[in-house]
Amino acid sequence: VTKGKNYLLGIDLGGTNIKIGIVNKKGVCVAKKSIPFGGDKTPSQTITRIVDAVMELIAEKQLSRKLFIGCGIGTPSPIDAKRTKVVNAVNLPGWVNVPIKSDLEKKLGMPVVLENDANVAAYGEKWVGVGKKFHSLVLYTLGTGIGGGIVIDDKLWIGAFGGGAEIGHMIIDINGNVCGCGNKGCIEAEASATAVVREFKKEIASGGNSSLSGKECITAKDICDAAKRGDVVAKRVVSRIAVYLATSIVSIVHIIEPEIVVLSGGLAEAGDILLGPVQQEAKKRIFTPARAKCKIVKGKLGKDAGVIGAAGWALYLLTKNFTE
Amino acid sequence: VTKGKNYLLGIDLGGTNIKIGIVNKKGVCVAKKSIPFGGDKTPSQTITRIVDAVMELIAEKQLSRKLFIGCGIGTPSPIDAKRTKVVNAVNLPGWVNVPIKSDLEKKLGMPVVLENDANVAAYGEKWVGVGKKFHSLVLYTLGTGIGGGIVIDDKLWIGAFGGGAEIGHMIIDINGNVCGCGNKGCIEAEASATAVVREFKKEIASGGNSSLSGKECITAKDICDAAKRGDVVAKRVVSRIAVYLATSIVSIVHIIEPEIVVLSGGLAEAGDILLGPVQQEAKKRIFTPARAKCKIVKGKLGKDAGVIGAAGWALYLLTKNFTE
Repeated sequence: VTKGKNYLLGIDLGGTNIKIGIVNKKGVCVAKKSIPFGGDKTPSQTITRIVDAVMELIAEKQLSRKLFIGCGIGTPSPIDAKRTKVVNAVNLPGWVNVPIKSDLEKKLGMPVVLENDANVAAYGEKWVGVGKKFHSLVLYTLGTGIGGGIVIDDKLWIGAFGGGAEIGHMIIDINGNVCGCGNKGCIEAEASATAVVREFKKEIASGGNSSLSGKECITAKDICDAAKRGDVVAKRVVSRIAVYLATSIVSIVHIIEPEIVVLSGGLAEAGDILLGPVQQEAKKRIFTPARAKCKIVKGKLGKDAGVIGAAGWALYLLTKNFTE
Repeated sequence: VTKGKNYLLGIDLGGTNIKIGIVNKKGVCVAKKSIPFGGDKTPSQTITRIVDAVMELIAEKQLSRKLFIGCGIGTPSPIDAKRTKVVNAVNLPGWVNVPIKSDLEKKLGMPVVLENDANVAAYGEKWVGVGKKFHSLVLYTLGTGIGGGIVIDDKLWIGAFGGGAEIGHMIIDINGNVCGCGNKGCIEAEASATAVVREFKKEIASGGNSSLSGKECITAKDICDAAKRGDVVAKRVVSRIAVYLATSIVSIVHIIEPEIVVLSGGLAEAGDILLGPVQQEAKKRIFTPARAKCKIVKGKLGKDAGVIGAAGWALYLLTKNFTE
């Protein structure tokens, strides 16, 4: 079926931008473009814009649709167990029960594989990223929220009902901050970019003196940058987040014990100011033999993890002839 | 290789008793016996006693060793990644680097499969217990400590380095009680039988008035029984444990999302006084679709889960010709 076909489409549908990439079978993204998410009145209009952008990109590269094995798309949302539609995406206003798989298949003229965005990012890092040599991997996407993906025996484990790998909603502080999901002390409520900003503001409100005091709009990146410059309040906040993140990694390693834990997403880009303390704290507390053997690292694919992972997961499912 | 062979040996090596069973290919334990663990000077003497007991049991049933596919043994200890030896068992004094697989193979004249006891119990419940109809399962063994086992895609997931599924060392209270492992707030430190007794004693020390006050040696069973009779202090302790257990189940379901979560071990035998509140609390907080679909139940195999599971896991590995 895939004879003579060498390419895949990867689509990363985000609440701000939609990234589209042409990815070859080796996992190299040979062309990409980004279009804004907003502005459409209906999901159907957005899907039409995605298809237009795809066609443009294919034309720009002087390729033909016939050269494509299929398309993978990652969405920041719950999707049905059969992986045919976006059920209800908090981050994508108006997207309720959108049959995106069949819509795209009709319009693109190729098979489409739909999956959660953090799951495909995990698969991307496993396919051609930091997890390339490994068979099991857990990935965190550290952003406004915290997502997760789990690879076991070289393939995604999405849970029995398609809703698993919600690493962000692992509870590590039974008396902790209330999470958007209603539970207390989820790692998302304690160590997301949102939590970084909240904790920083708490410090300032209780009299902490920071170089960022008075700045109107403070982001997690500002706080990480301030911590790097030696800002004491920012350092305290980053240290706290590191301990919470490390604690969740200790749990993940005790439960799943993957070969590698990958941190990706905006907050992971803060680099060593966060990653260093996380690694140190986690390694201190993880049991042997994983303490020495399990790697805790930053992802390698950066913002392309979603596009590459969606393409890779499509390649995996379509060439293994899986029907899920 | 297994032609004409219909039986397996299952051995559950515990710190108090060693249970031995003859299990047929359908998972029925057709004969069993139990011998004490203690009293030997060396592991080698214990292994000799196990072999003697096995031979007796086989003779009593008028069977021949030739009818056995192999033997599975579960031990309450870390074992090496290759599953050949008991590395260092806190619960089995003197057992350090014991090559039990090869020792037993020589003496029993059949292949031996070594695995952690909670892992095989999980496999037992999946093979012929409450998890029979399912492909994914997480099992808790609620005893002095808390162990765990994970079944994914119909087989045990033991972690990349053989040390995974340590459900008891999932951290749910970052500021919680210090666990035997050194971390704080592991579910083992908050909801094991040991924790039940500790919390009860704390309540009494701070003036709680219980029907058990003054009793010298109080067990978790006593406390659960008292709670059933309406003892207010005991009820409060059991409620607390239920919330902690439920919280850990919420996390496990968000991460792994198995079809079924199985509670086994002594504390699970407390029955509805604990299971009811655990189910209620967990179901309230688990995300859809797992909230409605994931089952949370007591195990069915009781104290035989280890023996049956060890036999079943041996059957699985030996007949699939896996070499791990």
